[in-house]
Amino acid sequence: MKPEDILKGNIQAAARLMRDIDDEIPSARDTLKHLFQRTGHAHIVGVTGSPGTGKSTLIDCLIQRLRENRKTVGVVAIDPTSPFSGGAILGDRVRMQRHTIDEGVFIRSLATRGHLGGLSRSTHDIVTVMDSMGKDVIIVETVGVGQDGVEIIHLAHTNIVVIIPGMGDSIQAIKAGILETGDIFVVNKADMGDADIALFEMETTIQMKRFQKGDWVPPVLKTDSSNNIGIKKLLDKIDQHKKYLETSFGKRQQQKRSAEMFEKILRDRLFQKTRNRLKGTQRWEETLNALKQREVDPYSAAESVVNDILKNTS
Amino acid sequence: MKPEDILKGNIQAAARLMRDIDDEIPSARDTLKHLFQRTGHAHIVGVTGSPGTGKSTLIDCLIQRLRENRKTVGVVAIDPTSPFSGGAILGDRVRMQRHTIDEGVFIRSLATRGHLGGLSRSTHDIVTVMDSMGKDVIIVETVGVGQDGVEIIHLAHTNIVVIIPGMGDSIQAIKAGILETGDIFVVNKADMGDADIALFEMETTIQMKRFQKGDWVPPVLKTDSSNNIGIKKLLDKIDQHKKYLETSFGKRQQQKRSAEMFEKILRDRLFQKTRNRLKGTQRWEETLNALKQREVDPYSAAESVVNDILKNTS
Repeated sequence: MKPEDILKGNIQAAARLMRDIDDEIPSARDTLKHLFQRTGHAHIVGVTGSPGTGKSTLIDCLIQRLRENRKTVGVVAIDPTSPFSGGAILGDRVRMQRHTIDEGVFIRSLATRGHLGGLSRSTHDIVTVMDSMGKDVIIVETVGVGQDGVEIIHLAHTNIVVIIPGMGDSIQAIKAGILETGDIFVVNKADMGDADIALFEMETTIQMKRFQKGDWVPPVLKTDSSNNIGIKKLLDKIDQHKKYLETSFGKRQQQKRSAEMFEKILRDRLFQKTRNRLKGTQRWEETLNALKQREVDPYSAAESVVNDILKNTS
Repeated sequence: MKPEDILKGNIQAAARLMRDIDDEIPSARDTLKHLFQRTGHAHIVGVTGSPGTGKSTLIDCLIQRLRENRKTVGVVAIDPTSPFSGGAILGDRVRMQRHTIDEGVFIRSLATRGHLGGLSRSTHDIVTVMDSMGKDVIIVETVGVGQDGVEIIHLAHTNIVVIIPGMGDSIQAIKAGILETGDIFVVNKADMGDADIALFEMETTIQMKRFQKGDWVPPVLKTDSSNNIGIKKLLDKIDQHKKYLETSFGKRQQQKRSAEMFEKILRDRLFQKTRNRLKGTQRWEETLNALKQREVDPYSAAESVVNDILKNTS
């Protein structure tokens, strides 16, 4: 498989590379590292929402509009209930999959592969391949919970949070930690009665945040994706946010997000690797035991483990 | 200063040790480590809520009842707006401070000392001293946000989350991540009109969680601390939760919480120390630069840093 084929947008070559990465073939990772340096063209759009918020239908509408504007599109679905993952009712699935025969749309699902923990890295890999293929817009569909969810949110340039009318959904959105990283909020299924309440609730919650001069203040939009309503306005906002990211304020924000993502990954990997090394060793068992017996407080115990781990490092 | 005096409950000796810890006198930390092994008697109760939820008045009522029941009490206030910290309106402050002339109540405030970052460790230190003094109940008052807030919540045996009627407060509670760790929820200022809505909202939110057999399902209570209403019921629930912690299910839960606290501290300290070591080095600058130039993806960059850091560790 030649990286050049992928850079030219060849779908077969891209699909094969993705499979090789899955199979952990070392040369595939080298190819990926090489491809990564050719990325940065695509605008990565995260679409986050609980199952049932209609985010797949919304993405379907977005794809249609983007294709009308002659943009090429990649989709990564990480929600196991997404029709893009083949897990939903047949009608939906067939409707979504009409895009699969369009050469300009490349859809991959991670949900059905049973990845856990490494989900964010796999998503990053697939986005890298799609970006290097030259896709203009890459949509990442996720339920946005857990550690993977948070990392995936950091990956996107523009994060769209989808909620629906009805008590508790905006609460869920906040609980998932996506209030902080949402760039555009969408109240979907706006044909439902209390869409305006949800809109007001969301706007109130956003106003609780303190914004500084030059900050992007997330807009809240109403859509009705089943009837293709509000999609143009949403695309306009995505474009507006993309332009914002090109301003000095936006660039700084984007750099901050990248740095946070790196630090988060570093923090997690450092801890995981340390724990994996220590687990089962006498030292680890002794520490846990001392904690249990209240012979040592957790701060002193942690300090002593850290000093041990880092003592040989210059 | 003799540790024996503290173990006997001597307030002057305890206050002096706390001051010495603040001044970072090495022998003080040794004394503290020694005292820690004599702790485990006190029931630690966290009271978390935004400023204005009346949690200080609620604590005031709790102290009064506990004293009537001949229990000795320690209070650690970490909310800068708390009357216990001397930061509030005079009337309140005077009312709270009536307890300060009661030998059975020991109040310390961390809020006015300007500790930042190390707040959770300082709290842990003070709780250790109070516990070793023989206090029956130690109340930790906190606004519960940020990293320190989360660690402090892990320290308590029983966590009370205080909210008041009115939109947004339950949302704030969830945002602060205290839904997961709240053992008892209190809707204070229940004389306000829409207390029942807040009660219902909170109960609905709790029901979203999945409980397993033997799990403690957090009750939601109404109180009106300004008029001393609902306090007995709250104390009963605290007792009930204390008894629950003595069951096998409760013990397991408590052990899980302790292990999580240790892992959280370990994760943070490991990252902080690594970052402090690397910051400013050529290696660190090169990594950040490579990330900026998209020469390397954040996962590969983090992996390479972690391998370097841990390579000399057996």
